[in-house]
Amino acid sequence: MRTDLSGRRLRAGIVGGGQGGFIGSAHRIACELDGEAAIVAGAMSRDPAIAQQSAHAWYLDRWYGSFADMARIEAARDDGIDLAIVVTPNDLHYPVAKAFLERGIAVVCDKPLAHSIDDARALCALVASCGEPFALTHTYTGYPAVREARERVRQGELGEIRKVLLEYQQDWLMTPLERTGNKQAIWRTDPSRAGISGCVADIGTHAQNLCEFITGKKIVALCADLTSFVPGRALDDDANILLRLEGGGKGTLTCSQIACGDENALSIRVYGSLAAIEWHQQEPNTLILKPAGRPWERLRSGAAALSAASRAASRLPPGHPEGYLEAFAQLYRDFFADMRRRARGEALRGGYPVAEDGLRGMNFVARAVESSRHGGRWVNV
Amino acid sequence: MRTDLSGRRLRAGIVGGGQGGFIGSAHRIACELDGEAAIVAGAMSRDPAIAQQSAHAWYLDRWYGSFADMARIEAARDDGIDLAIVVTPNDLHYPVAKAFLERGIAVVCDKPLAHSIDDARALCALVASCGEPFALTHTYTGYPAVREARERVRQGELGEIRKVLLEYQQDWLMTPLERTGNKQAIWRTDPSRAGISGCVADIGTHAQNLCEFITGKKIVALCADLTSFVPGRALDDDANILLRLEGGGKGTLTCSQIACGDENALSIRVYGSLAAIEWHQQEPNTLILKPAGRPWERLRSGAAALSAASRAASRLPPGHPEGYLEAFAQLYRDFFADMRRRARGEALRGGYPVAEDGLRGMNFVARAVESSRHGGRWVNV
Amino acid sequence: MRTDLSGRRLRAGIVGGGQGGFIGSAHRIACELDGEAAIVAGAMSRDPAIAQQSAHAWYLDRWYGSFADMARIEAARDDGIDLAIVVTPNDLHYPVAKAFLERGIAVVCDKPLAHSIDDARALCALVASCGEPFALTHTYTGYPAVREARERVRQGELGEIRKVLLEYQQDWLMTPLERTGNKQAIWRTDPSRAGISGCVADIGTHAQNLCEFITGKKIVALCADLTSFVPGRALDDDANILLRLEGGGKGTLTCSQIACGDENALSIRVYGSLAAIEWHQQEPNTLILKPAGRPWERLRSGAAALSAASRAASRLPPGHPEGYLEAFAQLYRDFFADMRRRARGEALRGGYPVAEDGLRGMNFVARAVESSRHGGRWVNV
Amino acid sequence: MRTDLSGRRLRAGIVGGGQGGFIGSAHRIACELDGEAAIVAGAMSRDPAIAQQSAHAWYLDRWYGSFADMARIEAARDDGIDLAIVVTPNDLHYPVAKAFLERGIAVVCDKPLAHSIDDARALCALVASCGEPFALTHTYTGYPAVREARERVRQGELGEIRKVLLEYQQDWLMTPLERTGNKQAIWRTDPSRAGISGCVADIGTHAQNLCEFITGKKIVALCADLTSFVPGRALDDDANILLRLEGGGKGTLTCSQIACGDENALSIRVYGSLAAIEWHQQEPNTLILKPAGRPWERLRSGAAALSAASRAASRLPPGHPEGYLEAFAQLYRDFFADMRRRARGEALRGGYPVAEDGLRGMNFVARAVESSRHGGRWVNV
Repeated sequence: MRTDLSGRRLRAGIVGGGQGGFIGSAHRIACELDGEAAIVAGAMSRDPAIAQQSAHAWYLDRWYGSFADMARIEAARDDGIDLAIVVTPNDLHYPVAKAFLERGIAVVCDKPLAHSIDDARALCALVASCGEPFALTHTYTGYPAVREARERVRQGELGEIRKVLLEYQQDWLMTPLERTGNKQAIWRTDPSRAGISGCVADIGTHAQNLCEFITGKKIVALCADLTSFVPGRALDDDANILLRLEGGGKGTLTCSQIACGDENALSIRVYGSLAAIEWHQQEPNTLILKPAGRPWERLRSGAAALSAASRAASRLPPGHPEGYLEAFAQLYRDFFADMRRRARGEALRGGYPVAEDGLRGMNFVARAVESSRHGGRWVNV
Repeated sequence: MRTDLSGRRLRAGIVGGGQGGFIGSAHRIACELDGEAAIVAGAMSRDPAIAQQSAHAWYLDRWYGSFADMARIEAARDDGIDLAIVVTPNDLHYPVAKAFLERGIAVVCDKPLAHSIDDARALCALVASCGEPFALTHTYTGYPAVREARERVRQGELGEIRKVLLEYQQDWLMTPLERTGNKQAIWRTDPSRAGISGCVADIGTHAQNLCEFITGKKIVALCADLTSFVPGRALDDDANILLRLEGGGKGTLTCSQIACGDENALSIRVYGSLAAIEWHQQEPNTLILKPAGRPWERLRSGAAALSAASRAASRLPPGHPEGYLEAFAQLYRDFFADMRRRARGEALRGGYPVAEDGLRGMNFVARAVESSRHGGRWVNV
Repeated sequence: MRTDLSGRRLRAGIVGGGQGGFIGSAHRIACELDGEAAIVAGAMSRDPAIAQQSAHAWYLDRWYGSFADMARIEAARDDGIDLAIVVTPNDLHYPVAKAFLERGIAVVCDKPLAHSIDDARALCALVASCGEPFALTHTYTGYPAVREARERVRQGELGEIRKVLLEYQQDWLMTPLERTGNKQAIWRTDPSRAGISGCVADIGTHAQNLCEFITGKKIVALCADLTSFVPGRALDDDANILLRLEGGGKGTLTCSQIACGDENALSIRVYGSLAAIEWHQQEPNTLILKPAGRPWERLRSGAAALSAASRAASRLPPGHPEGYLEAFAQLYRDFFADMRRRARGEALRGGYPVAEDGLRGMNFVARAVESSRHGGRWVNV
Repeated sequence: MRTDLSGRRLRAGIVGGGQGGFIGSAHRIACELDGEAAIVAGAMSRDPAIAQQSAHAWYLDRWYGSFADMARIEAARDDGIDLAIVVTPNDLHYPVAKAFLERGIAVVCDKPLAHSIDDARALCALVASCGEPFALTHTYTGYPAVREARERVRQGELGEIRKVLLEYQQDWLMTPLERTGNKQAIWRTDPSRAGISGCVADIGTHAQNLCEFITGKKIVALCADLTSFVPGRALDDDANILLRLEGGGKGTLTCSQIACGDENALSIRVYGSLAAIEWHQQEPNTLILKPAGRPWERLRSGAAALSAASRAASRLPPGHPEGYLEAFAQLYRDFFADMRRRARGEALRGGYPVAEDGLRGMNFVARAVESSRHGGRWVNV
């Protein structure tokens, strides 16, 4: 851990992110957007040529052929990185995170937390013991409207939580794209690389995390029906799941990557005994509040009517739309604040998804797969 | 059966509908809206004073203190009624319908078809044997957009049906309204009058019927989680149900009468291998079509781009909104056409929900209750 | 004037409405929808064969070959009509209305009030002197949401009215439809039959009337730019108009019949010093309220949060959409109430557009045409 | 002009942006978002203490107390800035831009182009003669949906342009905010600092620019009605304007800063003879296409159905919302590409608003004010 973070931008290094997907660039933009950090080093591919090219394309000062080299060398430099960003395939999340955390370097890691539950548990333990800040990028928790929804629940405005309706529909896998050479499709539909689940692990967990983030209630039981609609596909590309929450709430989670015409339709509705809220990721600056017996209210990100917690996550005046990258940047902004706190010897405040949330997500996937394999029976989470 | 229907308005009699609820008036308006029929007689209450008052309020020529009298006397009159409308509490649907059908009088009946599955089967048998037209008022099937959705499925435009998302959310029972003297709430939450289910029977069946009407696929299995959220309530006021359809489709049906802030939020989304459709009852004149790989299209009731089958269900030029009453009237319009066909000795064409659909709905409710009572296990429908 | 209206349906006769357009049927449905009246007689065409056929198609008891015969004979019958509905071409509005009013028969008349300003003034005078109820069918004033908007303004909730944005866009005349034999297009684009204006007279006046109905402020000056976009068309098919209102409000009215893709897009936005409202005819059951400094509220027709005046115009529980025909029926319902008041010797209450509103509309058209002919200069209304 | 731009991030310096407003930060984020440039120097305030503080808060390497110093010193450094960003009050736009352009440093400048038409003309001439890239930040032209709209017009898909409806409604000045010490309100309502117009100059010009950007048609005449609704305010806070376009199109532009409840409601509708388009800045990822006689299509930013020109302006897969900052960054991205082209000796390609557009905007404001002062008469632009 470096303690000289004051008065300067933080220095970040990235592992992975060198190829086709958009997520590497999204991390770069999100990390740098608020001017609090700059990416200065990268181990962006196992292939040295690609690693060099990728770093060059981003005008990075330093590039590495392996994450191990980067961890070792950067930890030793006076101007070495303060944090590492992990954007590798899932099976590397744990070893890469470990390499940096053990050298006192904070870590921001893509979901899932690890390739196996065991690794996930080990990583949780490591994070707990080393004390370094660790964030898992459930991006959607960074939206001002999502923060507002959480505040409204926390303030008791919804009353008792009775019902949640969670959705995450996409259509990009509605054809056998994995047989056309599409890299994203290939690894996400391959059990040896993606793990035991496709759709539930890839996007269902975002909905599960969002639910728990907003309601503050854990999902305690589920009954799942997973399907592979595209012939020949080994992993689920669609799921319908019944949920039970702590405290008696019920709900459904439906996710799909074969939902024709839907781009990235994540949404959540929470019905309480006093009010309900509704949010759609594709129109992220609006939160619908439905108080019992009164007209619906349209809460707009950044507006004076919102809580301070939510307004702190807006950069622009109301009516100037912010989107996915700004939500992503909000996770980084909260994370950087914690890094600076730690450097000053203060306690972390969190507010972003952490390792334990990643473990919960992996358990959720495991239980959903188990339920479905047994013909759709109820299992505890 | 009267055969002199040509050249005149049909004559209708109504049983029930005399009290507070809106459904009696909705039937009157729907029945008369297209000028094809007039209500001329009523047995609107068991209480003769209320029966007379109610008939007077509607300026009806003839009123009766009992449905049995009405059936007998009207059947004997030269200018007697051609059809009976059954708007009684559920336990009377079968005996009332029987009384008229056996005298050759066509019947339009509120859902559910009957109070018990046995009665429902008996009514189906009677309808089949007597040959009189019989309609069950699943009103939502009368909307032009719903007709269009069915056409698009029939024409193969959606391809293979993969996923359906059915919803019907209301909030009017989110408090213990039945303890405030509200008549509608009292009987709907009383097992002795409403039967084995509250929410699923009352509104879930509309969603189930709509699904089967549009997709042409039967629901073959379900797994249900029914809840009574309001303390002290004996019947379900909320349900989340997993579905499997003929042909391999999957889905969810979520319905609630405690969904804070939702008025009458019935909706359906059907995802196929080639396109998807989405429809919301509260904005009924729009049907969203989502063809694979192309922009969403907004199909508007009555527009030239719609099928003849759908356009026949519009009365006004596009942009002049039609609503619930017009959809309701469409059922009557189709039904009257069949009555006139039968009077001319022609075969019935249907197009409106019939007794068999009512039996399917009751089976659906019974299976959902059974599934939920066994802790949410899968059952065949 | 008949005084025996109590305890029975009112009897209506219709003049015109026998041909292709939808407006005749809309009147029939609207007039009869609430069960307060029945159309029993019609002079539906100048051509006796069509008049008979049309009456037969509606199962009317009595048909006439001329409105003059109908007025005379019906006035003399004991069971003659109580009101006449005028759905003729514009040039007949005055003579037909006159024939009935002079015989003590109430009149419901399509807009425009008359073919010339002089006739319009004469008709206003006649209505004033004869005392019979007279309604002009600016249908859109019948919507519950429009009634609510008016109430909110009346209660001072908007504060001082500062800005109004009025729109009425259609596209049905975007091609030279009048050259394809379309009857509606032919007469509406023919100065000898439609008068001095096309689009402004046909639909712009609805927007003008809606504005004055809701705000209670007269339009006192305008500056208009009228255009005939379709080559060869003699009358305006598009207009953009600047407005000034009593009390200092400003605004625009834009209307078009060549607005590609728009069906019947009438809308109004009123901005005050304390709140604003917004309403779109194509989603008529929702009124947006925008209170200063607070979230937008979505007011839904029939909801408990609405005023009694608005709720009285809903027939169904919230969430059961009502549309154009129900709004139309509301005008009739209010009108019938006034007819019954008059029969009982009570004062009329109004609430529906009357002859004076029709005269205002015609003046508005005349001033808009005048302004545009002078190159778009300001004129007082 | 530096020619060594290859293989490195561009270096930017900012003038102004050190105080309360959000626009300085918006420039920083937009400039750096795509990783193509970094702000390394700033003359962020005339007050040296604030200038130093502001630079420090952004972790800038170099700060200056005056723009003149910055221009001189940076131009002389080997690692000096490649471009200057001008975010000063309006009266400094011209002198600041001049200082940098004359030293071969490219300029990105806030609108308006200058404080007077004369200065604006001089700046246009300077840009033309010096050859340096110059961009004026009409941010809204950077949205993918706006680019798509322009492409559709260019490809002839709309046919002849008949009607445009332009709106820009805000409500932040609906009370006399300038008397509460709000700096933004104070200078924007002060003629000595804001110029001859408030609302039209501040936001109306964005709508005017958007119209000309998308349609490719110049506004050739207008008739304007400007109002100051808030008592005591010297400049217009509301305007309604009739428009005529090259080629015969007509339209309206209505803008307001007293439109209660509206945040930043910029929108454009363009109606052609073959199709229409509609776009709302507050839901920027959707463009509505209304082809004649066919259903509306919902074009979504980044989708495969969009043109290459539009898709190049998206960074994320469809359904991952991008907003104002990404649109802003798109101007910078296009501008940087031109800077690199010029460094390589290639011709500029533009695609972003330039000095001539700024001059057009200022002329538009001048003509609108002139028209209104003469009681709302037509004037040529």
